[in-house]
Amino acid sequence: MADAASEDLLSAEELGHAWPALSMEERLEGFHGLVRGDADDFFLDLPAADQAELLVALPPEERRLWVRLLAPDDAVDVVQGLPEAERPRFLELLDPVSRREVSALLAYAEDAAGGLMSPRFARVRREMTADEAIRYLRRQAREQAETIYYAYVLDPEQRLEGVVSFRDLLTAAPERRVDEFMKRDVVSVPDTLDQEAVARLMAAEDVNALPVVDGQGRMQGIVTVDDVVDVVQQEATEDIQKLGGMEALDAPYLATGFVAMLKKRAGWLAVLFVSEMLTATAMSGFEEEIAKAVVLAVFVPLIISSGGNSGSQASTLVIRAMALGEVRLADALRVARRELLTGLSLGVILAAIGVVRIFVWQGLFGSYGPTTPLLAATVGVSVIGVVTWGTFAGSLMPILIRRMGFDPASASAPFIATLVDVSGVVIYFTTAKLILGIS
Amino acid sequence: MADAASEDLLSAEELGHAWPALSMEERLEGFHGLVRGDADDFFLDLPAADQAELLVALPPEERRLWVRLLAPDDAVDVVQGLPEAERPRFLELLDPVSRREVSALLAYAEDAAGGLMSPRFARVRREMTADEAIRYLRRQAREQAETIYYAYVLDPEQRLEGVVSFRDLLTAAPERRVDEFMKRDVVSVPDTLDQEAVARLMAAEDVNALPVVDGQGRMQGIVTVDDVVDVVQQEATEDIQKLGGMEALDAPYLATGFVAMLKKRAGWLAVLFVSEMLTATAMSGFEEEIAKAVVLAVFVPLIISSGGNSGSQASTLVIRAMALGEVRLADALRVARRELLTGLSLGVILAAIGVVRIFVWQGLFGSYGPTTPLLAATVGVSVIGVVTWGTFAGSLMPILIRRMGFDPASASAPFIATLVDVSGVVIYFTTAKLILGIS
Repeated sequence: MADAASEDLLSAEELGHAWPALSMEERLEGFHGLVRGDADDFFLDLPAADQAELLVALPPEERRLWVRLLAPDDAVDVVQGLPEAERPRFLELLDPVSRREVSALLAYAEDAAGGLMSPRFARVRREMTADEAIRYLRRQAREQAETIYYAYVLDPEQRLEGVVSFRDLLTAAPERRVDEFMKRDVVSVPDTLDQEAVARLMAAEDVNALPVVDGQGRMQGIVTVDDVVDVVQQEATEDIQKLGGMEALDAPYLATGFVAMLKKRAGWLAVLFVSEMLTATAMSGFEEEIAKAVVLAVFVPLIISSGGNSGSQASTLVIRAMALGEVRLADALRVARRELLTGLSLGVILAAIGVVRIFVWQGLFGSYGPTTPLLAATVGVSVIGVVTWGTFAGSLMPILIRRMGFDPASASAPFIATLVDVSGVVIYFTTAKLILGIS
Repeated sequence: MADAASEDLLSAEELGHAWPALSMEERLEGFHGLVRGDADDFFLDLPAADQAELLVALPPEERRLWVRLLAPDDAVDVVQGLPEAERPRFLELLDPVSRREVSALLAYAEDAAGGLMSPRFARVRREMTADEAIRYLRRQAREQAETIYYAYVLDPEQRLEGVVSFRDLLTAAPERRVDEFMKRDVVSVPDTLDQEAVARLMAAEDVNALPVVDGQGRMQGIVTVDDVVDVVQQEATEDIQKLGGMEALDAPYLATGFVAMLKKRAGWLAVLFVSEMLTATAMSGFEEEIAKAVVLAVFVPLIISSGGNSGSQASTLVIRAMALGEVRLADALRVARRELLTGLSLGVILAAIGVVRIFVWQGLFGSYGPTTPLLAATVGVSVIGVVTWGTFAGSLMPILIRRMGFDPASASAPFIATLVDVSGVVIYFTTAKLILGIS
């Protein structure tokens, strides 16, 4: 057949879906099979880590072409994805202006405003008229400013004096001076601000771009709202993975290798497993009681899991509320009071269900004999205690962890469950001892 | 003091932070205490639910003023937050044009593209020159188009023919016709598309606005990237709360009332509690074995929690990967194979830790007597079985739940833990029976 070769070629869309599962050789083949226009779009749409991998794999003479396609802030992400040794070689491929910009951006932490911003913002002078400003921005539009829809007014020391939207310029009388109608109280962010805080501020201020300034108040770049969508998505993914009791992955699920995946998951599981061993130690101390009333052992999973579940709820709620800035460290007392009461109410509801279950089973099958009321009391009181404690501990643990300077999302559901399991065993058997009067 | 009254007044920022904790009376007082310009911004920055509450509480003669501040898509959100009976009265406050727009938008589901879009998009005609188009857009800028930075080219039937960015118009030669340089292959979304899918598409396409079309291909409005930030944030919050084993809240944590909070949490907890009762039933079947070797009971929490934890990891990972579109239903087999292998590896690692622990305790304290090797074998084999099963079940449950047409995020960590607890008890005691040869 004449078109046997072309039948083998994947479209950009097919290649995109197959990408994570392909070997680098197959990726290169697929990429080279795309027509030029599609290849451009395909390359620009790849995540930075994949762009970096692909660039390293490409023949050296093809690299410059692709590198120069990237905007400086995207180029920075790619460089950060390269092995240390490859970076200088890669920077040399850039034109001198971009190289300077990229090198400057590389000095910032990846997850700070400085690492997120583009240095190519549009600027106007305060004494320009609206008409002059529009003409000036028109020129900047050709020279690759990230967005011309916001123009910043800077003084000679590059300090931010105001901002005008392109729309303001269009609707203003052509001969009015920029400083007559520019917005002066501009919200800006320091270049060291964490990207999560940048995202929160942008959502709260409802703007499409935020200027970034250095320690001396000089404007360095802008963060635009489309960068922030990625940040919000990525931070939520990291939090969710941590909440599941593991380290956050660096790549999509199906694109993460088997060994890398194992490493991210085994560490936390091992820590939890070792901690959970304390339940065995705690229960060993009650072996005598168990021997006397084996039925006690039967309710252990029920009791401790009720604490774990209510604790998971509480910690998850508080962690998310903290990530959204709804709950701060100063709110700890309010959260504690609230969750104590909630935990108590939830405990009473679950205890009631548990007590009914025991009496019903006794009625139907005679499962528990004459000590049924005492057993029911033990289970009921324990559930109230364990759920109240689990909810309380689950809600305060993220706040405590944040206060110690760590990420509150580490107070994952499995972490809280493990913590509560150990104390749950102690609460349960101590209650049993008191109520059943064993030993 | 002369300024005793003004000392009582809160700034907009103070009011914003105190807001969730205030009674409606205090809110009204604080709101009326703001100077007019601040009050505008403050009102526009409130979440839609709070805007609705505030509007209902305001004296009727003040309402029109605030209602008319809202853009039509925001007004829709507010109306949806009002009690059914209040809605017609509220719609009457709008000017006739806005009322028509808002009523049309109200017909869409809140979480569909149609519910998210603004009907006020900028349009140009294909035969206009670049210069004419700019002048035309300048007029639309004054008339409250949501954004003029993208202008849509429609045919007489309102079908989308192309799009030009304002930037394209600025850089084009003034006398060129729009249809000479407009982008023709425009990505648009149907008005019924789910907002999560809209957000994903927007991130993938890297555009700042997406046109929304109806079933006949007629353009209805645009969704802009700043709407999508909220969607991404909100969907992640809902998923995280479900992953914590509860229903998603409708409001921020501290703004949710005690009873509403209890309702969202007690339901799932009760379901989990009742399911977990199966562990008691399962363990009852092994009471004889426990009576003969009480030490078996001691390891129950350790064994079952190792399954719950590994299952939580797996389900959380898969749920998030599905939400991001990285894993589809068609990938089920690949996920299953992968997780089976991962589960087995994790199980072996944890089993090794468990076996070492038992021998060390025996060496140090003589805890387990002559059956130590058999006990170690029981625990080791059970952990491998439970972790492999937990990981496998945890990864497939979200896919199954999605296939049944429900939200995969319901396969929360507590849900998976409960599921695995019950099977864990059976796996553990069956292994014990086989290895220890009891009964």
